[in-house]
Amino acid sequence: MVSSSSDVEKMRHTLSHVLAAAVRELYPTTTFGVGPAIENGFYYDIDFGDVKVSDADLARIEKKMRGIIARKCKMVRREVSREDAMKWAQENGQKYKVELIEELPEGETISFYDLVDPKTDEVLFSDLCKGPHVENLEEIGAFKLMRVAGAYWRGDEKREMLTRIYGVAFETEGELEEYLKRQEEAKRRDHRKLGKELDLFCFSDLVGAGLPLFTPRGTVLREELSELSLGMRGRAGFKKVWTPHITKVDLYKKSGHYAKFGEELFMVHSQVNGEEFALKPMNCPHHAQIFASRPRTYKEMPVRYMEATTDYRDEKTGELGGLSRVRSLTQDDSHVFCRKDQIKSEIQTLVGIVRRLYATVGMDKLKARLSYRDSSDKYLGDPELWKMAQEQIKQAAIDNGLDYFEQEGEAAFYGPKIDFMAEDALGREHQVATVQLDFVQPERFGLEFVNEKGEKERPVMIHHATLGSIERFMSVFIEHTGGWFPLWCAPEQVRVLTVNDKVEGYVDEVEKVLRGVVLEEPVRGNELRYEVDRSDDSLGKKIKRATEMKIPVVLIVGEKDAAESVVSVRTRDGEEKVKLDELKGWLMEKSRK
Amino acid sequence: MVSSSSDVEKMRHTLSHVLAAAVRELYPTTTFGVGPAIENGFYYDIDFGDVKVSDADLARIEKKMRGIIARKCKMVRREVSREDAMKWAQENGQKYKVELIEELPEGETISFYDLVDPKTDEVLFSDLCKGPHVENLEEIGAFKLMRVAGAYWRGDEKREMLTRIYGVAFETEGELEEYLKRQEEAKRRDHRKLGKELDLFCFSDLVGAGLPLFTPRGTVLREELSELSLGMRGRAGFKKVWTPHITKVDLYKKSGHYAKFGEELFMVHSQVNGEEFALKPMNCPHHAQIFASRPRTYKEMPVRYMEATTDYRDEKTGELGGLSRVRSLTQDDSHVFCRKDQIKSEIQTLVGIVRRLYATVGMDKLKARLSYRDSSDKYLGDPELWKMAQEQIKQAAIDNGLDYFEQEGEAAFYGPKIDFMAEDALGREHQVATVQLDFVQPERFGLEFVNEKGEKERPVMIHHATLGSIERFMSVFIEHTGGWFPLWCAPEQVRVLTVNDKVEGYVDEVEKVLRGVVLEEPVRGNELRYEVDRSDDSLGKKIKRATEMKIPVVLIVGEKDAAESVVSVRTRDGEEKVKLDELKGWLMEKSRK
Repeated sequence: MVSSSSDVEKMRHTLSHVLAAAVRELYPTTTFGVGPAIENGFYYDIDFGDVKVSDADLARIEKKMRGIIARKCKMVRREVSREDAMKWAQENGQKYKVELIEELPEGETISFYDLVDPKTDEVLFSDLCKGPHVENLEEIGAFKLMRVAGAYWRGDEKREMLTRIYGVAFETEGELEEYLKRQEEAKRRDHRKLGKELDLFCFSDLVGAGLPLFTPRGTVLREELSELSLGMRGRAGFKKVWTPHITKVDLYKKSGHYAKFGEELFMVHSQVNGEEFALKPMNCPHHAQIFASRPRTYKEMPVRYMEATTDYRDEKTGELGGLSRVRSLTQDDSHVFCRKDQIKSEIQTLVGIVRRLYATVGMDKLKARLSYRDSSDKYLGDPELWKMAQEQIKQAAIDNGLDYFEQEGEAAFYGPKIDFMAEDALGREHQVATVQLDFVQPERFGLEFVNEKGEKERPVMIHHATLGSIERFMSVFIEHTGGWFPLWCAPEQVRVLTVNDKVEGYVDEVEKVLRGVVLEEPVRGNELRYEVDRSDDSLGKKIKRATEMKIPVVLIVGEKDAAESVVSVRTRDGEEKVKLDELKGWLMEKSRK
Repeated sequence: MVSSSSDVEKMRHTLSHVLAAAVRELYPTTTFGVGPAIENGFYYDIDFGDVKVSDADLARIEKKMRGIIARKCKMVRREVSREDAMKWAQENGQKYKVELIEELPEGETISFYDLVDPKTDEVLFSDLCKGPHVENLEEIGAFKLMRVAGAYWRGDEKREMLTRIYGVAFETEGELEEYLKRQEEAKRRDHRKLGKELDLFCFSDLVGAGLPLFTPRGTVLREELSELSLGMRGRAGFKKVWTPHITKVDLYKKSGHYAKFGEELFMVHSQVNGEEFALKPMNCPHHAQIFASRPRTYKEMPVRYMEATTDYRDEKTGELGGLSRVRSLTQDDSHVFCRKDQIKSEIQTLVGIVRRLYATVGMDKLKARLSYRDSSDKYLGDPELWKMAQEQIKQAAIDNGLDYFEQEGEAAFYGPKIDFMAEDALGREHQVATVQLDFVQPERFGLEFVNEKGEKERPVMIHHATLGSIERFMSVFIEHTGGWFPLWCAPEQVRVLTVNDKVEGYVDEVEKVLRGVVLEEPVRGNELRYEVDRSDDSLGKKIKRATEMKIPVVLIVGEKDAAESVVSVRTRDGEEKVKLDELKGWLMEKSRK
């Protein structure tokens, strides 16, 4: 049995050779690209010529692989001269290998791995390969071929399109099963699938890729999440501002963003007078303009702005999928303009907000990366200020009990930062919130305030996003919850199912109660969203429909309930009877969980 | 005395001649353009050559005018031949008149008006003019020269820049005074001036003209107004949706907007792959895409969407000023997709919302223009449907007691509509809300629902905006209120002024009360916005500052107040003592007014 992580990699790498050997037996005229080990498994890029290979062929290939493994073959390494390697590749028509050999640096040791049957000494498959590999196929644990995909040779869309066969491999059957189960679960929770099933968002070919449209249900979810973030920041002294989505490019030239991100900007052209604008890809320069719109004194510092606004970034169409990567990304953006002696408390506040918010959405496993400068000269701003700020960032991490790690040289050129990673229900990590200090932008825009001595002083700027892009966070949150949203943010929080139309009068009473419910946690003034299913369908069908829509609270109202002034409450935790006059309290309590 | 409106116009027109006569006496080498009567007065466009004339010269010119009027001159009309007219213009060096005479159609009667002193028969001034004029300068009422402005000859920026002198004129001194007072008031209320004084919004040269940025205070006002509109529609069954600000132009090609408004679109260009997008100038096609995103049945009709979203229109820079005309206009937009038999009740609902909203913002003088088709063939859609819809629009106007008027031929090609005009505190009319039927867009997008018979049926679309553009409405509302916003939407609702720091402990108690106040009318869940002025300034200075910022409720807290557990409440209505334990109720009551 293999044991270290590197041994697992060896095994996965060897499996890619076994895969190639099996393919060569089944499709003798194939040409091979590369076949590395990857996270959780391996792949091989293969040119099948005119033959079409699909997922349907994988069982056959896998069976052949298991046959080879059963022969207990060995992986034998041998070194060859460049000439012999090239001769082998050319004689075997392996044009991709020819290309690889040509690119090997002069003087480099060239090795081949032969897959050898120890009983017959037959060489089943030879491949140009650096290794390392397991010595014996008996060391191979559990594996499975997963799927077929297209892949350009060398990732270059102008080169040949090869067929990539993916496999997964683990040391034990148990681990493989666990992995496959998690994959299944991830597929079930795929936010693109749930987005459709729960009617949260849609795309239109007429509108374009990466530009989601949110239906009423999805809009509720967006807004509740946004309100959660705005509310927490609002209570910490942040004030909402509003800025337009386009700007003259001058703004980004002055801020320095144009030089760095100019090519990712969507350019906007006025047909009336030829003026050039850009869609804003971030909001800091706009907020700096509001700060600069009137004189400031030390008394009103820190000035804290927040805005939930949509930025536009010109992503490649191929990179767009669902809400994970969009062209229209709504940021829950914040900027603090503060005195140097306020940096510490501002960071503490922001870290506290991040912790509370992720605890509220049920993702309290947070990791923080503290990014510092190194000794190179690529950083701008006073080194003393950097030192102090980095110490304060670390202190904030310690004071808040964060699970953190430090990375020198990872800071932005304009200041040190904290990035937060949150773990979802499937154990996947997602980069979420960020807190970034900025010593440069206030300089570029000439921002200032009058200090206690009556002198003009430069403020420090702190960039902060709590959710980050709301669209991206939604993709994470939909998969984290599997579409079973907590009561406070569920698009439809309660559905009333009538058993028959004799209970209509009682349903009026139930509705009267529901209309009076305003949840106050974690978002304030959250008027209850409920529907009544009065259709003629059977109760069973109504329940099925409510479950498919993942409605968190279902109230079933029958004649007996009416007689007793109760409702039958059905949630994922089970069913219970609740008195009508206790229903409001029950719902308020439920929203706090 | 003149009496009919047309007589007032005659008088204003005559004044422009008197103005020209006075100018000619004072500046003998001037050349004259045109001098018409306009609303409230008159102007004359004059070429002063190298002489600079400014507002400072108006008193002198006006004095000369009054001298001419005192001579009780007559206006004498005479007809002249084209040749004589031309000869006069050329001999007098009146090149603009030459141009005007050249353009007169062949055979047209050409007339001159002479300003004649009846006592001496001296002709003070002759001008090419159609008239009509008053016969005698004694008929002239009250007037005043107002200002000097630049004006291109024929409005063409490639032609000469003339000097335009504006005057106002009314039948009586009383009317003139009234007008000047209103003008003064309008100047005091100018939303650009108040926007700066009350720190509501700003502009940045780096961002661009017509692209306002809203400060924290202005953002509160925007959001409260938007919430008012969203809340009223929400309670009427409208559901929020969210759509991106850019779209492939295909969407507007399909909707038909591209052909009609293509040149007003801001075009967006992807540098990554060259794709062409547009900034959305309206939201109906986006909402139609959401409607089309899944199958619909008659049971879920009407489908009602609303969105407060920013549209972009490429206005000429010269037309941009404050918030009245912006490039980034946030619409409180709604779209109903309904069955034909639901048109009536949907219109009734929307008209009701408009009436309630404008009553709430204190602008209940509404006029409605009902725009119908005429018999021409430029209208699309079933004529029977048109007839029915027009009748229902009229019925809704009658049922809601609207002050309405009907205009045939004013409908859009796609359907009849209602436009609302609201009167502000200065008696000015502003076009505000609109309700428009649309029989065409559902056709273009192939929208459909399954009706009771199981057949596919085309819905009707209704476009509605309650406030219209929030920016434009803000410009109206700021001037309507003069910046004294009602409590519910005031950016800072309450300011607490401390008399000295001995009351600090009591201020804590006052703050505790204020923190607990959530206004529920007319916008729900409106947490009180208050500030405490703890500065060392005198109470007088604090009051002055609060008054300048037009804070609706000022609480003065002195030692005596603390001892008696009261606060001194200062509003525009006066001052009163309110017990601390009644303050919450007092504020709730105040917000309902």
